[in-house]
Amino acid sequence: MTVYFEDVNPGDELPELVKGPLTAIQLVRYSGAAGDFNPIHTVPEVAQSVGLPGIIAHGMLIMAFAGQLLTDWAGAGSVRKLKVRFSGMTLPGETLVCRGTVTEKAVEEAEALIGGRLTVKGKDDDSLKLKGTFIVALPRKGS
Amino acid sequence: MTVYFEDVNPGDELPELVKGPLTAIQLVRYSGAAGDFNPIHTVPEVAQSVGLPGIIAHGMLIMAFAGQLLTDWAGAGSVRKLKVRFSGMTLPGETLVCRGTVTEKAVEEAEALIGGRLTVKGKDDDSLKLKGTFIVALPRKGS
Repeated sequence: MTVYFEDVNPGDELPELVKGPLTAIQLVRYSGAAGDFNPIHTVPEVAQSVGLPGIIAHGMLIMAFAGQLLTDWAGAGSVRKLKVRFSGMTLPGETLVCRGTVTEKAVEEAEALIGGRLTVKGKDDDSLKLKGTFIVALPRKGS
Repeated sequence: MTVYFEDVNPGDELPELVKGPLTAIQLVRYSGAAGDFNPIHTVPEVAQSVGLPGIIAHGMLIMAFAGQLLTDWAGAGSVRKLKVRFSGMTLPGETLVCRGTVTEKAVEEAEALIGGRLTVKGKDDDSLKLKGTFIVALPRKGS
């Protein structure tokens, strides 16, 4: 269902996106899709040898979940900016919750823009995986 | 260097091809390349849960080594038949040796064909991974 600029206001929360539980094979798939074959994401022995508790998710995969939070809400092609800071590792077995809040709205260069902040957190322990800010463009009614 | 039909005879051995040691990340890469995401090839826990000693190589990857034995020798596009039977699992850390022997030669339908048999074995323990038969087409001198 289309979300219109006029219906969105600062303080609004985006519909939560729950992803997971993350699986090891998902990281194998992501490695191939992204061409990122750093073995800390897929080979437990290597991950442990560098001091990790086990294989960990690619940060860019977690960022992609944040992107999906936005596109599920505002639509494909809507994202104008997504800026994140990674805060914690994600291991297979974890389920993640992506949340966003609208903080501002403005019309610039003929685009109706919504700005906000978002987080991705572990569902079980509320651990922060990443936080960031976003700008999406929304359609206007009657345009 | 081009191998010519006239210079190949039954009893000839193909140049050995040594592959390895096989790595876990190579199986991650092959999973993505082949689209075969069976976790017994990449997720140790899953492999062990089904009674395997650990992750094992995709059979088709080992067969591809047999194919490379042929194309390294006879050239790209030369393989007319490659028929194999898998005999044993290959684990990361193993190095494989691919060998082939020419058993027959014949000219059929304007193609100069060489038939033979091949094996892929573990370098350390001589364990048989696969054996098979092949037919390749070779160029003739002056044609």
